Amino acid sequence: MSAEILCIGTELLLGNITNGNARWLAEQLATLGLPHHRQTVLGDNRERLMAAVREAAGRCRVLITTGGLGPTPDDLTTEALAAAFDTPLVEHPEIWAEIQARLLARGRVCSPSNRQQAFLPAGAQVLPNPTGTAPGMIWTPIAGFTVLTFPGVPSEMEAMWRATAAPWLRAAGLAEGVFASRMLRFWGVSESALAEQMADLLENENPTLAPYAGAGEVKLRLTARAGSDREAQALLAPLEAEIRSRTGTACFGVDDDTLASVVLEQLRQRGETLAVAESCTGGGLGAALAAVPGASDVFRGGVIAYANAVKQELLGVPAALLASHGAVSDPVALAMAEGARRATGASWAIAVTGIAGPGGGTVEKPVGLVHIAVAGPDGSSSEAVRFGSSRRRTWIQTLTAGEALQRLRSRLMVQL
Amino acid sequence: MSAEILCIGTELLLGNITNGNARWLAEQLATLGLPHHRQTVLGDNRERLMAAVREAAGRCRVLITTGGLGPTPDDLTTEALAAAFDTPLVEHPEIWAEIQARLLARGRVCSPSNRQQAFLPAGAQVLPNPTGTAPGMIWTPIAGFTVLTFPGVPSEMEAMWRATAAPWLRAAGLAEGVFASRMLRFWGVSESALAEQMADLLENENPTLAPYAGAGEVKLRLTARAGSDREAQALLAPLEAEIRSRTGTACFGVDDDTLASVVLEQLRQRGETLAVAESCTGGGLGAALAAVPGASDVFRGGVIAYANAVKQELLGVPAALLASHGAVSDPVALAMAEGARRATGASWAIAVTGIAGPGGGTVEKPVGLVHIAVAGPDGSSSEAVRFGSSRRRTWIQTLTAGEALQRLRSRLMVQL
Repeated sequence: MSAEILCIGTELLLGNITNGNARWLAEQLATLGLPHHRQTVLGDNRERLMAAVREAAGRCRVLITTGGLGPTPDDLTTEALAAAFDTPLVEHPEIWAEIQARLLARGRVCSPSNRQQAFLPAGAQVLPNPTGTAPGMIWTPIAGFTVLTFPGVPSEMEAMWRATAAPWLRAAGLAEGVFASRMLRFWGVSESALAEQMADLLENENPTLAPYAGAGEVKLRLTARAGSDREAQALLAPLEAEIRSRTGTACFGVDDDTLASVVLEQLRQRGETLAVAESCTGGGLGAALAAVPGASDVFRGGVIAYANAVKQELLGVPAALLASHGAVSDPVALAMAEGARRATGASWAIAVTGIAGPGGGTVEKPVGLVHIAVAGPDGSSSEAVRFGSSRRRTWIQTLTAGEALQRLRSRLMVQL
Repeated sequence: MSAEILCIGTELLLGNITNGNARWLAEQLATLGLPHHRQTVLGDNRERLMAAVREAAGRCRVLITTGGLGPTPDDLTTEALAAAFDTPLVEHPEIWAEIQARLLARGRVCSPSNRQQAFLPAGAQVLPNPTGTAPGMIWTPIAGFTVLTFPGVPSEMEAMWRATAAPWLRAAGLAEGVFASRMLRFWGVSESALAEQMADLLENENPTLAPYAGAGEVKLRLTARAGSDREAQALLAPLEAEIRSRTGTACFGVDDDTLASVVLEQLRQRGETLAVAESCTGGGLGAALAAVPGASDVFRGGVIAYANAVKQELLGVPAALLASHGAVSDPVALAMAEGARRATGASWAIAVTGIAGPGGGTVEKPVGLVHIAVAGPDGSSSEAVRFGSSRRRTWIQTLTAGEALQRLRSRLMVQL
């Protein structure tokens, strides 16, 4: 009882567009609780389509296709499906009448090629398209295998799914139970270390647990299947509690949380404000904060102190400090953080100074070395971190911004 | 002589992430001239992986896989590939040594599960991963079928492709003829408008032309196929000239250029410097500049003036101006730009102030309204732009940073 997705279009194979339809349909299938084991992308090629559909019929219960329903010669989906199961195409006069009416209403001329869209394999049911000309179909060519076809235009596909396909799948008893899922987010731990810590839980069958890595953070997805959303949520809760008890402060948030949104919320609850002083990130730390809706009640701004003169002028970093320790040092990071706090009147400030590369590294201060300082009402501290000189510049900048937010987060958790 | 792409990861089947890797690889295959007929997505499931790989071996010459190379138990790609062709895994001590060295350099503990990444099927060649721990492989398990494996992390996959895989495919004679391609980059024009302007050229067979859209910019890829790189380049040149003559200044760069890198180079050649003053972008404009290697000889930094008090204190924006015009206005944008120029000593400054949403919009000043000012040696100017209130916050911030750079670029082109 599983589903597959087949996306049809040469533009996908040429890399002209990203396959957003596959992702959207995958989410819908997960929500319906219809297990989904494979996605395939093919070009507008009759023989390859026929072969792929026959293969799918041997593997799955439901095949969802997108694309190839238009009026042009390279729109082959309906025809190839009919041919794959040796079924003749029959015209649906009501579809043809509707296509004509719709095109006329838009002031378009109806071309003979539009009529091709009114043909479906014998025995197929129309899957109406409320917002476009090309309808899809729901067709069971052989026992135990149903295909649902959609156009490639995302808005039309989504409207058809919601109005007809999802209710049909539910009514047909193909959507069993519901899935609920939750994403726990971690900073400062590697994917492999986290996976080892969770080794026993990764074996779970329901709820399942899966680790992901990306952009410096690591994530654990918890997915539960049950008869209702309430029951599924109830399965997730104890697993989440167990993971949190094992990982302590490394888990910074859930679902759409970011390190920035979590830190902003910590400060909001304390009625405090935040400023930044950025050298190597050049604004990336501030941008991460400003990306959070409503950041402005906590985030006051700060200084992009890329040049040393700006560190001196706007943050009051003493020239002597820069001369004796160099810009990439704990004393300068501390002076930057304290300067940003003073200049903006914020309760807290974070400062970063480092070597993002690819040039500028030395043996003592290699690419990837960053000093991060946090200044607050109770004093200041600074510490170095080494991200490794093999990282790309923008990657080091992203990791620096995350690590800086994590430092402040930890400090705020201690200082309750 | 065709290729297929196999992307592995349950997160793709759950719809957690969009399959950007498939698109990127598809573009690369098109550039290499290696025909590509199918993409498949599977979860982390050993039996399904084995079956899919055996099917692919019967259909194609080259299989590119992404994902499943990590150290966790659900990383099954290498093992499933070996099992699909009844081949034992053998350890590569040099990989293990490198993994240990890399983790130690990052201050991470090496766990036993990391060692799994040092095993490859007998006969496989290492596909080095210069920026991460998991290497891939190039393996020909049966005559006429080669598989290349990559991790799912896009930046690692891309670096490995460029450094090793693409040259290997060329050297192996799998990329037929020589393809040369060039990406022209545009700002301030929509994909559909550009496509209409180029309608006749889009019909070309050699060189081909294909439009792409993304992150506010629009791109045109020119691809020529010929017997030698020289001949292919000779085919591209007149097409590029024709496109440039039709589009004027909307074309800002080629290939890896960004608006930021182009503006920095314009200023570098003039021996001038740049500062920023950012309200609604919160540092995103500075981050775009700092992302360019070597930015520091032109970019001096600036002020993230998120709160009005910071606009006053650090940029000298008069309180009366804020009170009478509001923070989102041309007079305030001008004062911010002039203040940033004064405070940093830079030759030029760009300032942005606007409403990124989702809250904070009014009828007069809706979400998506941004004022952008440019101040330079020859004076200052400011103008509003409306990105539309239906856009997401981070999208408005990205468009704002790009538009601000484009304004400075235009100004510098006039003022030669």
